[in-house]
This record gives sequence, C-alpha cells and structure tokens, in this order.
Amino acid sequence: MNDLLGLADLSAREITELLDLSQELAGILERPIKKVPTLRGTAVATLFFEPSTRTRTSFELAAKYLSADTVNLSPQGSSLEKGETLWDTARTVAAMGVDALVVRHRTAGVPERLAALLPVPVINAGDGAHEHPTQGLLDLLTVRQHFGRIAGLKVAVVGDLAHSRVARSDLWGFTALGAEVRLVGPRLFWPADWEELGVPVTEDLEAGIRGCQVVQVLRLQRERQAAGLIPDAQEYFARWGLTPQRLARLAPEAVVLHPGPMNRGVEIASPLADGPASLVARQVTNGVAVRMAVLYRLLGGRAR
Amino acid sequence: MNDLLGLADLSAREITELLDLSQELAGILERPIKKVPTLRGTAVATLFFEPSTRTRTSFELAAKYLSADTVNLSPQGSSLEKGETLWDTARTVAAMGVDALVVRHRTAGVPERLAALLPVPVINAGDGAHEHPTQGLLDLLTVRQHFGRIAGLKVAVVGDLAHSRVARSDLWGFTALGAEVRLVGPRLFWPADWEELGVPVTEDLEAGIRGCQVVQVLRLQRERQAAGLIPDAQEYFARWGLTPQRLARLAPEAVVLHPGPMNRGVEIASPLADGPASLVARQVTNGVAVRMAVLYRLLGGRAR
Amino acid sequence: MNDLLGLADLSAREITELLDLSQELAGILERPIKKVPTLRGTAVATLFFEPSTRTRTSFELAAKYLSADTVNLSPQGSSLEKGETLWDTARTVAAMGVDALVVRHRTAGVPERLAALLPVPVINAGDGAHEHPTQGLLDLLTVRQHFGRIAGLKVAVVGDLAHSRVARSDLWGFTALGAEVRLVGPRLFWPADWEELGVPVTEDLEAGIRGCQVVQVLRLQRERQAAGLIPDAQEYFARWGLTPQRLARLAPEAVVLHPGPMNRGVEIASPLADGPASLVARQVTNGVAVRMAVLYRLLGGRAR
Repeated sequence: MNDLLGLADLSAREITELLDLSQELAGILERPIKKVPTLRGTAVATLFFEPSTRTRTSFELAAKYLSADTVNLSPQGSSLEKGETLWDTARTVAAMGVDALVVRHRTAGVPERLAALLPVPVINAGDGAHEHPTQGLLDLLTVRQHFGRIAGLKVAVVGDLAHSRVARSDLWGFTALGAEVRLVGPRLFWPADWEELGVPVTEDLEAGIRGCQVVQVLRLQRERQAAGLIPDAQEYFARWGLTPQRLARLAPEAVVLHPGPMNRGVEIASPLADGPASLVARQVTNGVAVRMAVLYRLLGGRAR
Repeated sequence: MNDLLGLADLSAREITELLDLSQELAGILERPIKKVPTLRGTAVATLFFEPSTRTRTSFELAAKYLSADTVNLSPQGSSLEKGETLWDTARTVAAMGVDALVVRHRTAGVPERLAALLPVPVINAGDGAHEHPTQGLLDLLTVRQHFGRIAGLKVAVVGDLAHSRVARSDLWGFTALGAEVRLVGPRLFWPADWEELGVPVTEDLEAGIRGCQVVQVLRLQRERQAAGLIPDAQEYFARWGLTPQRLARLAPEAVVLHPGPMNRGVEIASPLADGPASLVARQVTNGVAVRMAVLYRLLGGRAR
Repeated sequence: MNDLLGLADLSAREITELLDLSQELAGILERPIKKVPTLRGTAVATLFFEPSTRTRTSFELAAKYLSADTVNLSPQGSSLEKGETLWDTARTVAAMGVDALVVRHRTAGVPERLAALLPVPVINAGDGAHEHPTQGLLDLLTVRQHFGRIAGLKVAVVGDLAHSRVARSDLWGFTALGAEVRLVGPRLFWPADWEELGVPVTEDLEAGIRGCQVVQVLRLQRERQAAGLIPDAQEYFARWGLTPQRLARLAPEAVVLHPGPMNRGVEIASPLADGPASLVARQVTNGVAVRMAVLYRLLGGRAR
C-alpha cells in the first residue's frame, strides 16, 4: 500500500490488517500518555481545499501522537486563488520534503491523480462524492469493537445518499468484510448510479432499517433545503429522522453511527444521539486510531 | 482544581498558589532555552469560537514551552456553521484524546457548561462579559512583581467597563488578595449590575485614579462608536484617555496596565504606553508564564 | 548577522557563507529522516500580514526540521483590525519569548523597522516591492548547484518587474556574486527607479534572454489585468510568455526559474515549466534548505 485512496481499492485482507493495526493503536489512546515515538522525524502535511476542522484535527492529532510533525495548508485565499493549479500547489508541498500528504478536495479523483503525480504517499481525506476511506475504516472499527465481527451484520446507511462519500466508503468496506448493506433515503437523494451499486436501495425507512444491527445516519446537507429539495428540516425529521422509538421498534439491538457533524432534530433525534445505542463518541476516538494506523502503515518504514 | 473557569471561583490561597507557580515558571522564560519537558506527551486544544490571535498564541507557546503538543480550532466557517452545536464540537475534540481544552466564546458561561459536560480540563480563555481568568492572573503577577504585594494597593480599572471580562477577573482577583478596586468609566459603559459588585464605581476619572498604585486601562470596544454611544475617539481620549500628565498629577507612583490590543490615542496616550510607568510588555510575558502554570496545574499529574 | 532583511545589505562573502550552509543543510533534506535536533528548544513565530501559504509553510518546515517550535500568526481579521498598530502586534509576539520573527508585510521597510524595534532576530519573508531575501538565496543556491558557480553567468529576470521584490533580491544577490543581470519586461512594468539600478533594462524579450544561462520568469500580478494595464493573459503570453521554442532558439543552455505560484500559459508555457530546463521543483526544496540555514545562522548560538 503506497497511498490510501479509497476502500473500493482494498481487499478484505488489507482492510482487516488496517483494522487490526488500528485496534492496537486504539490501546495507546486509552493511556494517560498517548504519545509514542514511532514516526519521530517525519512530517505530514494536511492540504484541505475544502475546509474541515474536524477531519484535519483528527489527522493532525494522529500524526502528533505518533511524534510526526504537521503543517496545515488551506489553500483557499492563497496560492490557488492567485492562479496556481492545484497540481502545482501539491507538487510544491511535496517538494518541501514532507513525508505524506493528507488531501481533501471537492472533486472526486483529485487524491488519485495526486498520488500518480507525486513521489510521496497521498491519503484521501474525502474527495467529492467518491470516498472518505478513513471514515469507512473508523465505522468498521467501531462496529467490530461492538459486535466482535463485521461478517453477517445487516447495515443500513440512511439519509442524504446522493453526494455522500461516507455512504460509498461504508458500502465498499462493510461489503468487503461480509456485511449486508442497504441504502435508505428519499428518492431524490439516491445516487445517480444506484442501480449499479449492487445493494438494495429503498425509500422505505421502516423496511430499510428493520432487523439491522447497524444504522449509519448521514448528515443532511444544508444546501438541500436552500435548493428547495426538501420542504423544511422538521418535515425531513418527521419522515426520515432517526428516533429512539423508531429504532426500538424496528431494530432493537442496533447501534447508531453518525459521521458528524450532526444536525440534531434533522436527521437524528437528540435522545438517540446521546443515548446508549449511539457510538458517535467512540467513532471520533476511533477516527484518531485509524488515522494513526494509516500513517504508520504508509510512513512506518521511513521513520528512525 | 479540575478546570480554570474564573477567578471568582478561587480562594485567595488558590490564586496565590497559581501566582507562585507562575513566578517560578517566569524564570524559565528568562533563559536562553525556554523549553522544559514537563508536559511531554500531552496534547492541548485551543477552541476559539471568537478569534484572538494574541491569547491563542500565548496559550500555544505556553503549551509548547512545556513540551505539550497543540492543535488550534477556530470553528467559525467550519462544523458549527454546518449546523453542529458547540457542545458537539467540543465533545468531538475531547473524544480525540486531547488532555485539555482552552475555550473562548462570546457567551458567558460556555466554558463552565463545557467543564460539566466533558471529561477533560477546560480553561476559560474569555467568555462573553464574564471572566478572562488568565488575564486576571497575569495582571496580578505583574503587579506583585512590581510592588512585592497585592494587599493594600489601590487599583483603578478605567474605561469601557460594561462588557469587560477583564474588569471582572481583575475585580475578583485583586479583591481576593486584599487590594482595593475602583471602577472608573463613562456612565453609559457601567456594567448593568454595578450596584451589586461591592466596589466603588465612578464617572470621575480624576477622583477615580487619584492615589492609586495601579491603573488598568481597558480597551475601548470599537463597536461603541459605530453604535453612536461615543461621539468620536478624540473626544473619548480628551475625557477618558490616560495621559502621562494625568497620571503624574493624580497617581505619580502608579503603574499602568493594558490588556491589549491597545488603541493608542483613544484610551491611552502613546507616551504613556511606551513610558516607564507602563508594564504592558511585562504583562505579555507574564501571560505566557501564567498559562504555563495553569496548564501545569491541570495536566502536571498526567504527564510522564 | 542579527537579522535577515535583504540581500542588498549583505557582502558577497556573507551571501556565500549562507549558500555554503544551505548546501550542507540541503543534504539533510535528501535523507529519509530530515529532522535534526539543532534548534531544539527554540521557538519561531511567522507573522504574515500578507498571506502566503507557500512561504509560511517553507519557513515552518525549515524550523521543524531543525526541531524548533513554530507558531503562525496571520493578523488580518485579528488584533490589527481591532486598531492595534503592527508595531504593537510584533512587540507582543516578541514579548511572548519567541526566538525569531519571520515577517511578511505589503509595505517595504516594515521588517527593517521591526528589527530596530525588537530584541529578537527578524527575518524578512517579503516586504512590499523591496526584498524577499530567502527567495534570492534559494535562486542563487539552485543556480550554483546547476552550474557550479554564479560568477560570469548571464541572468535575465523577465516579466512583471515593477513591484517585484523577487527581482530586487535576485538583482542584488546575483550581482554581488559576479553574475551579469538584465531586467526584461514591458515598459509599463519597469520599476520607477530603473535608471538607478545599474543594470540593463529592456523591453526586447529576445535580446534580453539571448545567450543567458539563467532565466527567472516572474509571475504576472493578477491585478495587472484588472487595472487594464494589459489587454489579456493570452496577449501577454504571446508577447512575454516564455516558451520552450523561444528558449531553445535564444538561450539553449539556459535553465528556467520561477518563484511561484506559476500562471501557466500566462508568463510561462506549461511544457517549459515541466520540462528539463525547469528548476522549479529544485527551487522549492532549496527554499527549505535556505530557510534552515538562515534560522541556524540567527538562532544557532541560542539552542542547547
């Protein structure tokens, strides 16, 4: 593995190895002192063309817990606006001697192209509606910790599917490890290629989540309402929002995931987000462990 | 002490202990090499919902001089704008394994609520018009270094009092250690609860600062003029600005403090800001020492 | 050397010593692990009043590879907007105990004035149309690596000369080391003081670059077109853009430099930027080495 571009590219074995490594590193996060010298002397650059404090900070802390140095670049308002191509921006950062580039971009495929172009490992931190592989990995890790396995589980991914790279990475990851995935959401928000995805896609929330062990609730993109695609947040909640009642009735043993940031009262009810079925906080912690594992896998050979 | 939320919560003894520790750490800042390994392996997150490069940098350097790692989050334009509650933002950062959260927010009480919510220490870096406890501590340290004591000193806090968390923290801190505090400023800018503060509040600048050993000059909020509350900066300066002449005449032995950033020629005359009575640079240096002390007190037990 | 303000201030010997040191440190950048403990325990602040992710990151990585701590301040929208003078902003940062200030400002002379004002070393990271000395040094280093010498080379600096601090620093640096410099560009973009610069200035691109060993292509400021000074980018490219054909015909042994960010198809043709004559990537890497050398020279005595 030279880069991490998407879970669709990885075999079940590669994914499982990353999860095993993540699990080991998650143990470090339980200690009073989390810092280990593993990547001392390496430098990781985050290059976020689309802002995300949450994901950037998670990668930054993952690097720091491994004793790597970090630099953060948010090229909006900077070189790029001055007319530089994003390829030149990335090439420039690579030429400064960093050991890995963590890239987020609103266009699918940018990390892949950068990986082909650059001599340093590229980690996809979310590209358009394509993939968000570390999110997929942290969801897998969280579920595996809870149930002890992935294979055989029924997983519903619910909500605003169309532009969701989270839905994609979950789909590839859970399917690869033997879970059965269903996509559930308003017809208007189905991905354009839903027929080719090879999994059930349904508008029927109740049928969709019935009997599931895992429900991943996607965030409703705020632009949806602005675009007039949904009447209002309340109506969306009434029809598509996940509540403790719905869950208790349809999938009483299910755990609930959310990639964050949550719109409480829109796609998820607050009592559910804060209740015993919610693994949201665990996801965040596992996100750091997973990113440590990815950095370690890609840079481990390089460190002293 | 599990958090630092405000000086009003601390006993004279607790404040004095923090000052003693700050004084010790101030010695480190005099050395050619300021870095000590005390907090190696810990991570501190700054979470500034209201921007302040100055205070954020002071905390960041304090952490780094103690060998802690730092991550900076300025959630405007990020998750929060995406509809996430600030509680979820803070919970997320805490779930990433940081050892302390330094929080600034425009609303009084946010750090206190976060401290109740989160399993990690919370440090208030300024909340609305409530408190800015490390500013209070650095003012105390600066004055104590100069006079060798706090008890018995006469302290005037002058200017734009209404929304000043600095005025509050100074008031509680200096009073707790036995100084006599007076608030001086235009009637329009008195705090709404001035009658309950238990100290003299006056419009009379001359009477207010006469015989004082310490004059803390508050920054005039720029919005004041925009709101039409004061005619213009020059007129404010004529009536309320602190000048070397005024000080020499009324309080010849007084030292002058300012929390920064200064509006020269508005609340303070340049010759005074740069003159021998000014302890402004010392305040900045002490700010780092005080923040080192607070981090050490809250995290010292955790580091290796 | 207490500060680095401009190459015009340095003797040939001082420049050569900095290049020798940079060359040595460039060797570190070739290693799998680039980090050395040389400046451990020191802290470097970047203070960029004008944004530049590229230059800021280069300094930040240079500091980190030497094990210095860094803090980044971009005072727009912060204290300065609150009415603080830039002198007070810089004084404040210095009072926090940092060991060096890296300053960029749109006004020529700001770093010099700060160096006089502050007790810590100041490094000019670009001031108005005055100087960008580390850019000059990295250009010199890149050319010296390629040709083994500077003396006797013919160097053309081409393009938008008027406001170019890069052109200035190159001019002083290359001239000091015995190269022959020519400035080439549209008459409208000549510097106001071109007659006093002591080097040929010409509008004739072909004559200007003929027989040169080095062509530095300057970036066309985007504001030029907005100001109506040039008709459009295509026309500028037709007349002033550097292409492989032009170069092959006029200066077949020349190497091409560009300070970045590049406007491809405006001042430089893509095939040239990516071709064998281009030293652009090498410039970026050398930029880190040069900044390491400058930091080492200014702070080396201070570190443990």
